[in-house]
Amino acid sequence: MDSPPFDELVTANRILAREGVVDAFGHVSIRHPSHPDRFCLSRARAPECIEADDIMQFALDGTAIDPGGRKPYAERFIHAAIYEARPEVRAVVHNHSPAVIPFGITATPLRPVMHMCASMGTEVPVWDSRAHFGDTNLLVTAMPMARDLAAALGPRAVALMRGHGCVVAGASLREVVFNAIYLQLNAELQLRAAGLGAITFLSDGEVAAVLKTRSSFTFERAWEYWCQRAGRPYDARPMEGPLAR
Amino acid sequence: MDSPPFDELVTANRILAREGVVDAFGHVSIRHPSHPDRFCLSRARAPECIEADDIMQFALDGTAIDPGGRKPYAERFIHAAIYEARPEVRAVVHNHSPAVIPFGITATPLRPVMHMCASMGTEVPVWDSRAHFGDTNLLVTAMPMARDLAAALGPRAVALMRGHGCVVAGASLREVVFNAIYLQLNAELQLRAAGLGAITFLSDGEVAAVLKTRSSFTFERAWEYWCQRAGRPYDARPMEGPLAR
Amino acid sequence: MDSPPFDELVTANRILAREGVVDAFGHVSIRHPSHPDRFCLSRARAPECIEADDIMQFALDGTAIDPGGRKPYAERFIHAAIYEARPEVRAVVHNHSPAVIPFGITATPLRPVMHMCASMGTEVPVWDSRAHFGDTNLLVTAMPMARDLAAALGPRAVALMRGHGCVVAGASLREVVFNAIYLQLNAELQLRAAGLGAITFLSDGEVAAVLKTRSSFTFERAWEYWCQRAGRPYDARPMEGPLAR
Amino acid sequence: MDSPPFDELVTANRILAREGVVDAFGHVSIRHPSHPDRFCLSRARAPECIEADDIMQFALDGTAIDPGGRKPYAERFIHAAIYEARPEVRAVVHNHSPAVIPFGITATPLRPVMHMCASMGTEVPVWDSRAHFGDTNLLVTAMPMARDLAAALGPRAVALMRGHGCVVAGASLREVVFNAIYLQLNAELQLRAAGLGAITFLSDGEVAAVLKTRSSFTFERAWEYWCQRAGRPYDARPMEGPLAR
Repeated sequence: MDSPPFDELVTANRILAREGVVDAFGHVSIRHPSHPDRFCLSRARAPECIEADDIMQFALDGTAIDPGGRKPYAERFIHAAIYEARPEVRAVVHNHSPAVIPFGITATPLRPVMHMCASMGTEVPVWDSRAHFGDTNLLVTAMPMARDLAAALGPRAVALMRGHGCVVAGASLREVVFNAIYLQLNAELQLRAAGLGAITFLSDGEVAAVLKTRSSFTFERAWEYWCQRAGRPYDARPMEGPLAR
Repeated sequence: MDSPPFDELVTANRILAREGVVDAFGHVSIRHPSHPDRFCLSRARAPECIEADDIMQFALDGTAIDPGGRKPYAERFIHAAIYEARPEVRAVVHNHSPAVIPFGITATPLRPVMHMCASMGTEVPVWDSRAHFGDTNLLVTAMPMARDLAAALGPRAVALMRGHGCVVAGASLREVVFNAIYLQLNAELQLRAAGLGAITFLSDGEVAAVLKTRSSFTFERAWEYWCQRAGRPYDARPMEGPLAR
Repeated sequence: MDSPPFDELVTANRILAREGVVDAFGHVSIRHPSHPDRFCLSRARAPECIEADDIMQFALDGTAIDPGGRKPYAERFIHAAIYEARPEVRAVVHNHSPAVIPFGITATPLRPVMHMCASMGTEVPVWDSRAHFGDTNLLVTAMPMARDLAAALGPRAVALMRGHGCVVAGASLREVVFNAIYLQLNAELQLRAAGLGAITFLSDGEVAAVLKTRSSFTFERAWEYWCQRAGRPYDARPMEGPLAR
Repeated sequence: MDSPPFDELVTANRILAREGVVDAFGHVSIRHPSHPDRFCLSRARAPECIEADDIMQFALDGTAIDPGGRKPYAERFIHAAIYEARPEVRAVVHNHSPAVIPFGITATPLRPVMHMCASMGTEVPVWDSRAHFGDTNLLVTAMPMARDLAAALGPRAVALMRGHGCVVAGASLREVVFNAIYLQLNAELQLRAAGLGAITFLSDGEVAAVLKTRSSFTFERAWEYWCQRAGRPYDARPMEGPLAR
């Protein structure tokens, strides 16, 4: 199939807006399903407002393919550099979630407190643009800075960006949306728990067990719910993975 | 009467979703009114999306009766083990309330701060799956782990689950929904009060007095309100109990 | 005029529900405009659900006048005792606002941090039912306990009730609704500020200046707004007071 | 063009209400586009309720021009004094944002934690009416007090008002609305981060870089989003500034 699932990508934008992960800013992309050297991302527009015609295609250096007069996001390079570095990644979210940002501007590490949130892994790095680029407007508007961020992300699912937000990478659009929403929830839970005393985090073994046993059905159940909340049609997918039975 | 109140169970699901006690995950069940060796629980679907046709029946070991191709919740065993151990329990909620979870991952006990929330009792145990089962994905997907959780719950109304959520057991569907919502409120209140200094909790005598004098009308008044908020019809019930006069 | 403004009282109920001051519980009453020895209060029902036909009349000892089969609130005595003790009071709210409750269960006094919230006065007492009545279910269901609460309130606008909620008394329905909502806001603000360090409260002179210069127009502007949010028609009133010019 | 953009000003009011920056109180004004010695501001009404016919015009001393029986805000002098002192300012917001107020009543300075919020600058002064005017009702209802506030604001974009709220000044209506909303977000983020430890704020160089590179398109993208949330039509503007390319 050559035609990318633009409607699904619109739905992902609306879901992230409805769940408070993005506001006027933040974005979500997919790798093109039949052209892995491209990714699909909206023109520069608030996620809540995006329609299918807004979806553009980009090369892995962030160059727009057939822009048709549409203005791209200045920070499309975030997506480009992650797809460039990580062939297995098929979807990326960049957001400014208000729950997550506090963990990027303090020395408290964000760590998984709950099974649903284990996808962040046992270690979430904080990338600081100032380390290699000095005083900037913090926007990632060119490949060198984007590649520096992608290097900080490494093989992980999540990296925080100091004074800015975070990136989330995943193997599918439903997975990356799921992970961005539960990353936000984990941050909310950890913030609250911090006021009650020392926290028992998930052990490394628990995180590994969650990741190993998770099936696509987990993402499906949530996706149907989020579609309903966002007022978008739900398009069911066949189940995959160890718990799909 | 042989036909279980499936519409009421759908309403309970929608109420718990509307009040933020469940999101895409979490579930509520009832013991079958005429077959006490069965319970009724939706197929694996987000509570906000559930319809009457989604309600399945299960034996007290979690085996589906007449599944008709419907996929059950992997964690139906939580309900099974509580109904098995507690003949007087007629409804069970399992949820991941974001207000409650912090009390399962810190050493601060959840205790009643307000009369509406006394149903949790004076002691709320925290069950940790790691104690007897080691590093797992924390899901309760078989009877041995579910029975261990039910044993930790004992004769109480509420048990927290470390890094996961909680279970709430009650004598009726309206009571268990009420208790799950006010458990969440108590957690919210206790979290806020923790920032202001030492808390005066309800005394044991106060908790006992609340439980002794509570009538079914308390649950009715709240149920009508929650039905209205959830956009569900309200089906009034005759009052029972000491304050029904 | 003999006919009390039942529609306005319904609106007050809906506003308090919409603004989160009451949930399924809590209530608001007015003194009968032409029979000052009576007050008007809904039958026992969630404020969000109340209709004009639900409004009952009571004597100042809490006895229902012409109940017509309607079940009154068990705690109507709270209203009765305040009207009995305070001839100038024409409206009363009792609520369980989640922002306010933490100040009733800790030693941190609730004090005005902002001009809009000065109506609580410079001192907000906390009434504890346990002091004179021991271990109870905390409900104020008879005149002796209600009179004890009214005595704690004294000439003030607000008293907190430990482990329960608060009462707010005012010279008009619009004023008491305004004061209940801004009491909640003050509690919210004070809770947040408590995490940032020592708080500069309004001085006694500032509180006195706010109360002295406040006109009915302040309540009107807010009432129109709250009516719109609650989906209720707005019935404008002529302005009174020092700033009405 | 002589006719001021009243519809845009109504939209600004509705956006600020929808985003929780104003409630029944607070206001937003623009300098008259063709008569710079006038400003446009609603009659005294809650921002959520304002219609185009409510917009009045005022001289820079707060005198109403052609009031037509409409009652002005008692605090219109806040706007008057800022337009009088700052010829480059074309829009002003005064609000009581619940996230911002805690920073006006404690010694913790509000400082930018995130690039979107850099418009507040590196220093946000707190103006205390008590310093020069003693115990008042805190309302700024005459020019002397308003000029004192404007002097505290100086050349900055934001000043907090102790026990009251804040003022935000900008070069356009879209900019000032943007800055008021992201000021609120910064306050929310800083409050949360304060519970996690010492905060890394934006450096002075980063704040300068953000301000220098910001284009009008940033405000446009957000304005379209906020219009949609507030149920108002979006009127697109041509882009200006360094990043508009």
